[in-house]
Amino acid sequence: MNNNAQEIATQFVQHYYTTFDTNRSQLAGLYRDTSALTFETSQVAGVASIVEKLTSLPFERLQHRTSSVEAQPVAGGSAILILVTGQLLVDQESNPLSFAQAFTLAQDASGQWYVANDIFKLVYA
Amino acid sequence: MNNNAQEIATQFVQHYYTTFDTNRSQLAGLYRDTSALTFETSQVAGVASIVEKLTSLPFERLQHRTSSVEAQPVAGGSAILILVTGQLLVDQESNPLSFAQAFTLAQDASGQWYVANDIFKLVYA
Repeated sequence: MNNNAQEIATQFVQHYYTTFDTNRSQLAGLYRDTSALTFETSQVAGVASIVEKLTSLPFERLQHRTSSVEAQPVAGGSAILILVTGQLLVDQESNPLSFAQAFTLAQDASGQWYVANDIFKLVYA
Repeated sequence: MNNNAQEIATQFVQHYYTTFDTNRSQLAGLYRDTSALTFETSQVAGVASIVEKLTSLPFERLQHRTSSVEAQPVAGGSAILILVTGQLLVDQESNPLSFAQAFTLAQDASGQWYVANDIFKLVYA
Protein backbone atom coordinates (compact mmCIF):
# COMPACT_ATOMS: atom_id res chain seq x y z
CA MET A 1 0.00 0.00 0.00
CA ASN A 2 2.86 2.38 0.70
CA ASN A 3 4.15 1.86 -2.80
CA ASN A 4 0.71 2.32 -4.26
CA ALA A 5 0.15 5.52 -2.25
CA GLN A 6 3.54 6.82 -3.41
CA GLU A 7 2.72 6.02 -7.03
CA ILE A 8 -0.68 7.73 -6.89
CA ALA A 9 0.89 10.71 -5.11
CA THR A 10 3.68 11.09 -7.66
CA GLN A 11 1.23 11.04 -10.58
CA PHE A 12 -1.16 13.40 -8.82
CA VAL A 13 1.54 15.92 -7.92
CA GLN A 14 2.88 16.03 -11.46
CA HIS A 15 -0.62 16.57 -12.86
CA TYR A 16 -1.51 19.14 -10.19
CA TYR A 17 1.47 21.44 -10.72
CA THR A 18 1.43 21.11 -14.52
CA THR A 19 -2.22 22.21 -14.42
CA PHE A 20 -1.49 24.94 -11.86
CA ASP A 21 1.33 26.37 -13.96
CA THR A 22 -0.51 26.25 -17.30
CA ASN A 23 -4.23 26.76 -16.64
CA ARG A 24 -5.22 27.25 -13.00
CA SER A 25 -8.97 27.22 -13.69
CA GLN A 26 -8.65 23.58 -14.76
CA LEU A 27 -7.79 22.67 -11.16
CA ALA A 28 -11.56 22.69 -10.53
CA GLY A 29 -11.70 19.05 -11.60
CA LEU A 30 -9.36 18.05 -8.78
CA TYR A 31 -11.49 19.41 -5.91
CA ARG A 32 -15.01 18.63 -4.62
CA ASP A 33 -17.53 20.66 -2.65
CA THR A 34 -16.27 19.14 0.61
CA SER A 35 -12.65 20.15 -0.16
CA ALA A 36 -10.75 22.67 1.94
CA LEU A 37 -7.83 24.90 0.95
CA THR A 38 -5.50 26.87 3.19
CA PHE A 39 -3.33 29.15 1.05
CA GLU A 40 -0.85 30.86 3.38
CA THR A 41 -3.32 32.13 5.99
CA SER A 42 -6.50 32.20 3.87
CA GLN A 43 -9.00 29.37 4.34
CA VAL A 44 -11.65 28.59 1.73
CA ALA A 45 -13.87 25.56 1.08
CA GLY A 46 -15.73 24.10 -1.89
CA VAL A 47 -14.75 23.95 -5.57
CA ALA A 48 -16.01 27.42 -6.55
CA SER A 49 -14.30 29.28 -3.69
CA ILE A 50 -11.08 27.29 -4.08
CA VAL A 51 -10.83 27.95 -7.81
CA GLU A 52 -11.68 31.61 -7.30
CA LYS A 53 -8.87 31.85 -4.73
CA LEU A 54 -6.33 30.07 -6.92
CA THR A 55 -7.17 31.97 -10.11
CA SER A 56 -7.12 35.34 -8.34
CA LEU A 57 -3.61 34.96 -6.92
CA PRO A 58 -1.69 38.05 -8.03
CA PHE A 59 0.86 36.57 -10.39
CA GLU A 60 0.80 35.90 -14.09
CA ARG A 61 3.33 33.15 -14.53
CA LEU A 62 4.25 30.45 -12.08
CA GLN A 63 6.56 27.50 -12.13
CA HIS A 64 6.55 24.87 -9.39
CA ARG A 65 9.66 22.73 -9.05
CA THR A 66 9.19 19.82 -6.69
CA SER A 67 12.15 18.76 -4.55
CA SER A 68 10.41 15.92 -2.70
CA VAL A 69 7.09 14.09 -2.73
CA GLU A 70 6.41 11.80 0.25
CA ALA A 71 3.18 9.84 0.67
CA GLN A 72 1.51 7.59 3.24
CA PRO A 73 -1.82 5.76 3.23
CA VAL A 74 -4.32 7.24 5.71
CA ALA A 75 -6.92 5.30 7.67
CA GLY A 76 -6.21 1.89 6.17
CA GLY A 77 -5.84 3.17 2.62
CA SER A 78 -9.08 5.07 2.13
CA ALA A 79 -7.08 8.28 1.77
CA ILE A 80 -3.51 9.38 1.06
CA LEU A 81 -1.39 11.99 2.84
CA ILE A 82 1.17 13.80 0.68
CA LEU A 83 3.86 16.26 1.72
CA VAL A 84 5.52 18.15 -1.14
CA THR A 85 8.50 20.44 -0.77
CA GLY A 86 9.82 22.52 -3.60
CA GLN A 87 10.49 25.88 -5.12
CA LEU A 88 8.25 28.40 -6.78
CA LEU A 89 9.35 30.75 -9.55
CA VAL A 90 7.02 33.75 -9.81
CA ASP A 91 6.72 36.00 -12.88
CA GLN A 92 10.05 37.60 -13.77
CA GLU A 93 11.67 36.91 -10.39
CA SER A 94 14.89 34.96 -10.65
CA ASN A 95 15.02 34.01 -6.96
CA PRO A 96 12.80 31.03 -6.28
CA LEU A 97 10.69 30.83 -3.10
CA SER A 98 10.66 27.62 -1.06
CA PHE A 99 7.29 26.06 -0.32
CA ALA A 100 5.70 23.13 1.48
CA GLN A 101 2.27 21.76 0.58
CA ALA A 102 0.28 19.04 2.33
CA PHE A 103 -2.60 17.25 0.62
CA THR A 104 -4.96 14.53 1.56
CA LEU A 105 -6.49 12.72 -1.40
CA ALA A 106 -9.75 10.80 -1.13
CA GLN A 107 -11.72 8.75 -3.67
CA ASP A 108 -15.15 9.77 -4.94
CA ALA A 109 -17.98 7.34 -5.73
CA SER A 110 -16.54 6.70 -9.19
CA GLY A 111 -13.13 5.84 -7.73
CA GLN A 112 -11.44 9.04 -8.87
CA TRP A 113 -8.91 10.55 -6.46
CA TYR A 114 -9.58 14.18 -5.53
CA VAL A 115 -8.08 16.74 -3.14
CA ALA A 116 -9.93 16.62 0.18
CA ASN A 117 -7.43 18.83 2.06
CA ASP A 118 -4.82 21.24 0.73
CA ILE A 119 -2.49 23.42 2.82
CA PHE A 120 0.10 25.56 1.04
CA LYS A 121 2.81 27.52 2.87
CA LEU A 122 5.86 29.43 1.75
CA VAL A 123 8.93 28.48 3.79
CA TYR A 124 11.35 31.21 4.74
CA ALA A 125 14.96 30.39 5.57
CA MET B 1 -14.81 22.75 13.40
CA ASN B 2 -11.95 24.63 11.73
CA ASN B 3 -11.36 26.56 14.91
CA ASN B 4 -11.48 23.42 16.98
CA ALA B 5 -9.05 21.65 14.63
CA GLN B 6 -6.71 24.64 14.81
CA GLU B 7 -6.89 24.70 18.60
CA ILE B 8 -6.18 20.96 18.94
CA ALA B 9 -3.36 21.29 16.39
CA THR B 10 -1.73 24.23 18.18
CA GLN B 11 -1.77 22.41 21.52
CA PHE B 12 -0.54 19.18 19.96
CA VAL B 13 2.34 20.84 18.11
CA GLN B 14 3.54 22.66 21.21
CA HIS B 15 3.47 19.43 23.23
CA TYR B 16 5.08 17.41 20.44
CA TYR B 17 8.12 19.64 19.92
CA THR B 18 8.62 20.31 23.63
CA THR B 19 8.72 16.53 24.17
CA PHE B 20 10.93 16.01 21.09
CA ASP B 21 13.44 18.61 22.27
CA THR B 22 13.59 17.45 25.91
CA ASN B 23 12.98 13.68 25.97
CA ARG B 24 12.40 12.01 22.61
CA SER B 25 11.57 8.59 24.08
CA GLN B 26 8.45 10.12 25.64
CA LEU B 27 7.05 10.61 22.14
CA ALA B 28 5.96 6.95 22.35
CA GLY B 29 2.72 8.06 24.01
CA LEU B 30 1.77 10.11 20.93
CA TYR B 31 1.89 7.22 18.41
CA ARG B 32 -0.01 3.93 18.07
CA ASP B 33 0.84 0.62 16.39
CA THR B 34 -0.98 1.73 13.23
CA SER B 35 1.04 4.97 13.02
CA ALA B 36 3.46 5.69 10.17
CA LEU B 37 6.51 7.95 10.13
CA THR B 38 8.47 9.21 7.15
CA PHE B 39 11.64 10.95 8.36
CA GLU B 40 13.37 12.42 5.33
CA THR B 41 13.39 9.29 3.13
CA SER B 42 13.09 6.60 5.85
CA GLN B 43 9.69 5.00 6.39
CA VAL B 44 8.85 3.16 9.61
CA ALA B 45 5.57 2.05 11.20
CA GLY B 46 4.37 1.21 14.70
CA VAL B 47 5.28 2.78 18.06
CA ALA B 48 8.43 0.75 18.71
CA SER B 49 10.00 1.35 15.29
CA ILE B 50 9.03 5.03 15.28
CA VAL B 51 10.53 5.68 18.72
CA GLU B 52 13.65 3.72 17.81
CA LYS B 53 14.03 5.88 14.69
CA LEU B 54 13.47 9.14 16.55
CA THR B 55 15.75 8.33 19.48
CA SER B 56 18.55 7.11 17.22
CA LEU B 57 18.78 10.30 15.16
CA PRO B 58 22.42 11.39 15.30
CA PHE B 59 22.17 14.62 17.27
CA GLU B 60 22.30 15.35 20.95
CA ARG B 61 20.44 18.60 21.28
CA LEU B 62 17.62 19.87 19.17
CA GLN B 63 15.43 22.90 19.19
CA HIS B 64 12.36 23.19 16.98
CA ARG B 65 11.05 26.71 16.33
CA THR B 66 7.67 26.72 14.63
CA SER B 67 6.97 29.47 12.10
CA SER B 68 3.45 28.35 11.15
CA VAL B 69 0.88 25.75 12.20
CA GLU B 70 -2.09 25.30 9.86
CA ALA B 71 -4.84 22.75 10.46
CA GLN B 72 -7.95 21.41 8.73
CA PRO B 73 -10.52 18.82 9.75
CA VAL B 74 -10.29 15.62 7.67
CA ALA B 75 -13.21 13.39 6.66
CA GLY B 76 -15.90 15.33 8.50
CA GLY B 77 -13.83 15.89 11.63
CA SER B 78 -12.76 12.35 12.51
CA ALA B 79 -9.16 13.35 11.89
CA ILE B 80 -7.06 16.53 11.62
CA LEU B 81 -4.46 17.47 9.02
CA ILE B 82 -1.63 19.70 10.25
CA LEU B 83 1.15 21.36 8.27
CA VAL B 84 3.96 22.84 10.35
CA THR B 85 6.82 24.92 8.97
CA GLY B 86 9.71 26.03 11.09
CA GLN B 87 13.38 25.94 11.86
CA LEU B 88 15.55 23.37 13.52
CA LEU B 89 18.64 24.17 15.57
CA VAL B 90 20.93 21.15 15.85
CA ASP B 91 23.64 20.71 18.48
CA GLN B 92 26.20 23.53 18.36
CA GLU B 93 25.21 24.71 14.88
CA SER B 94 24.25 28.35 14.74
CA ASN B 95 22.59 28.16 11.32
CA PRO B 96 19.07 26.80 11.63
CA LEU B 97 17.66 24.35 9.06
CA SER B 98 14.19 24.92 7.62
CA PHE B 99 11.71 22.07 7.90
CA ALA B 100 8.15 21.14 6.99
CA GLN B 101 6.18 18.45 8.82
CA ALA B 102 2.74 17.08 8.00
CA PHE B 103 0.70 15.17 10.56
CA THR B 104 -2.67 13.56 10.61
CA LEU B 105 -4.12 13.15 14.09
CA ALA B 106 -6.83 10.58 14.85
CA GLN B 107 -8.71 9.75 18.05
CA ASP B 108 -8.34 6.41 19.85
CA ALA B 109 -11.19 4.59 21.61
CA SER B 110 -10.69 6.70 24.74
CA GLY B 111 -10.92 9.93 22.74
CA GLN B 112 -7.23 10.77 22.94
CA TRP B 113 -5.68 12.32 19.82
CA TYR B 114 -2.64 10.47 18.50
CA VAL B 115 -0.36 10.76 15.45
CA ALA B 116 -1.66 8.50 12.68
CA ASN B 117 0.64 9.91 9.97
CA ASP B 118 3.86 11.89 10.29
CA ILE B 119 6.05 13.11 7.42
CA PHE B 120 9.13 15.21 8.22
CA LYS B 121 11.25 16.92 5.55
CA LEU B 122 14.07 19.41 5.67
CA VAL B 123 13.50 22.26 3.20
CA TYR B 124 16.49 23.59 1.30
CA ALA B 125 16.45 27.09 -0.14
